[in-house]
Amino acid sequence: MSTLHEDLIVIDGLIVSNWSEEVFRDMRKGGLTAANCTCCVWEGFAETMANVSRWNGWFCDHEDLIVKARTAADIRRAKEEGRTAIILGFQNTSAFEDKLGAVQLFKDVGVGIAQLTYNTQNLAGSGCYESRDSGLSDWGRELVAEMNRVGMLIDLSHVGSRTSEETIRESSKPVAYTHCLPSALKPHPRNKGDGELRFIAEEGGMIGVTMFPAFLSGGENATVDDYAGAMEHVISVAGEDSVAFGTDFTQGYGQEFFDWITNDKGDGRSLVKFTPMSNPKGVETIGQLPNLTAAMERAGWTEGRIRKVMGENWLRFLGEVWGE
Amino acid sequence: MSTLHEDLIVIDGLIVSNWSEEVFRDMRKGGLTAANCTCCVWEGFAETMANVSRWNGWFCDHEDLIVKARTAADIRRAKEEGRTAIILGFQNTSAFEDKLGAVQLFKDVGVGIAQLTYNTQNLAGSGCYESRDSGLSDWGRELVAEMNRVGMLIDLSHVGSRTSEETIRESSKPVAYTHCLPSALKPHPRNKGDGELRFIAEEGGMIGVTMFPAFLSGGENATVDDYAGAMEHVISVAGEDSVAFGTDFTQGYGQEFFDWITNDKGDGRSLVKFTPMSNPKGVETIGQLPNLTAAMERAGWTEGRIRKVMGENWLRFLGEVWGE
Repeated sequence: MSTLHEDLIVIDGLIVSNWSEEVFRDMRKGGLTAANCTCCVWEGFAETMANVSRWNGWFCDHEDLIVKARTAADIRRAKEEGRTAIILGFQNTSAFEDKLGAVQLFKDVGVGIAQLTYNTQNLAGSGCYESRDSGLSDWGRELVAEMNRVGMLIDLSHVGSRTSEETIRESSKPVAYTHCLPSALKPHPRNKGDGELRFIAEEGGMIGVTMFPAFLSGGENATVDDYAGAMEHVISVAGEDSVAFGTDFTQGYGQEFFDWITNDKGDGRSLVKFTPMSNPKGVETIGQLPNLTAAMERAGWTEGRIRKVMGENWLRFLGEVWGE
Repeated sequence: MSTLHEDLIVIDGLIVSNWSEEVFRDMRKGGLTAANCTCCVWEGFAETMANVSRWNGWFCDHEDLIVKARTAADIRRAKEEGRTAIILGFQNTSAFEDKLGAVQLFKDVGVGIAQLTYNTQNLAGSGCYESRDSGLSDWGRELVAEMNRVGMLIDLSHVGSRTSEETIRESSKPVAYTHCLPSALKPHPRNKGDGELRFIAEEGGMIGVTMFPAFLSGGENATVDDYAGAMEHVISVAGEDSVAFGTDFTQGYGQEFFDWITNDKGDGRSLVKFTPMSNPKGVETIGQLPNLTAAMERAGWTEGRIRKVMGENWLRFLGEVWGE
């Protein structure tokens, strides 16, 4: 591990792995300070609460490895203690069902980030695979206000373009694409145009660059250096204070999981086909994250830029949105 | 009771009353052959199944008064037996939650009609009080196909204009406004323009004219004759084979109920304010339905038209949509 990496605050904007002690150990191996860990994709209220409850069990059983993060201070403390701070996050607002009051309930149990929609239309707005993006609904506007009020970060990664723009304008707090890639390098419904990347940054938002092979121009042949190159493109558009990373690691999952996340509502029509794919060479697992810092060093990035993109941008930004 | 009324098939396109033996006895007093009785407004799957279960209890306890209707033949038999046939109906698709498979489950337990959206946007499309009608979603199109497949009538009364038009075009079976009034007589987000009334009729659909005072030009001062006049307007636009009635009787309910139905999702923001209101003079209760037939006779309608509008149009149409 490079000396620099050991010293960094390292924050992953999105991991959706098959949680287990093995994954938690790999987080420590990778020098991961904190991560936005998905605990809701298609689930409703009760099932998501049960998912949070399982996390609470893991926080007890593996307190040497992980700790729940509710604040930026929790993340700093985790770094000092050598543990990984887990930010519980949603990739959908299905867990709120039709109750605005659920936002506060989930915030109180530790959920700090929620994506407004996942792939298709829900009560709040449209997703990136919906044929027609209907924009933010009236209830969606109320949801944005409630998430602003309680201090829950709004994620727009899988959200449709029109709904994203309207949410960015509607939100009184900055919002994020926690895990996305630029469509300038590879056109794809999940990728974001340079105008979209510039706009969210201008509005104070954060962009976590992802490495899911299907969205990278190199596909499964991409390397960690190609990934750093994609980051450089985003930095050139949005500036280095607005760029971070969000891997979308799906460690430990097989085809059944990919079918569930790519079928509408989990068991509906197929929206897009993905098979389990290898991440860019050099960062195929969470434990290999030090190779990302090394790639940035190889690319001649300044230490200041590396510190920001590897975690300090997320830390500053989350503190701002959470208000603590 | 006029001799004619006693002989008629009388079908109410929508009743949402506070169900009780008293209401069931009033149905018999009013000579009601069948009615679309609401068992879901904002509820989800489990709560709606519980509502159906309560109905099943009432069918046992009051088998002298009411019987569940699954087919047009069930309605004809109820007429012969002197009972009121209850068509279980939804005013929303919230009961399906995010599962297309729920449509068949509810059809199997006796639900024959479901309104696609209620007042605001849901997973399928937009409602009449949504600021911007986003149209039918991709999932909405699948839902329409599934309702067509199992033979569940699609109701568009509280649905937004754009979503309604797209649903009418999408559906392989004719659809209905079970309870609406013409905006030509009173502009209101819940009322339908002449073009909309004409379009649904041209596509084989049915229009149940409603009598909720807030949507009538005469408001609370309207009489049963004014209501028959509103029906005449709809007939002049859509033709007498495409017009029926759907009272929206809210018998037995007070302010708490009106707050629940007019707040988004039942407990959210207020969409429109209604207080409990008197229905048109002469038809203030279900038991007074014979006065509607009498008003049509006073207006000089032919017996053939009265028979159609009072129930035979619904009977023919439901048989067509249900396929039996």
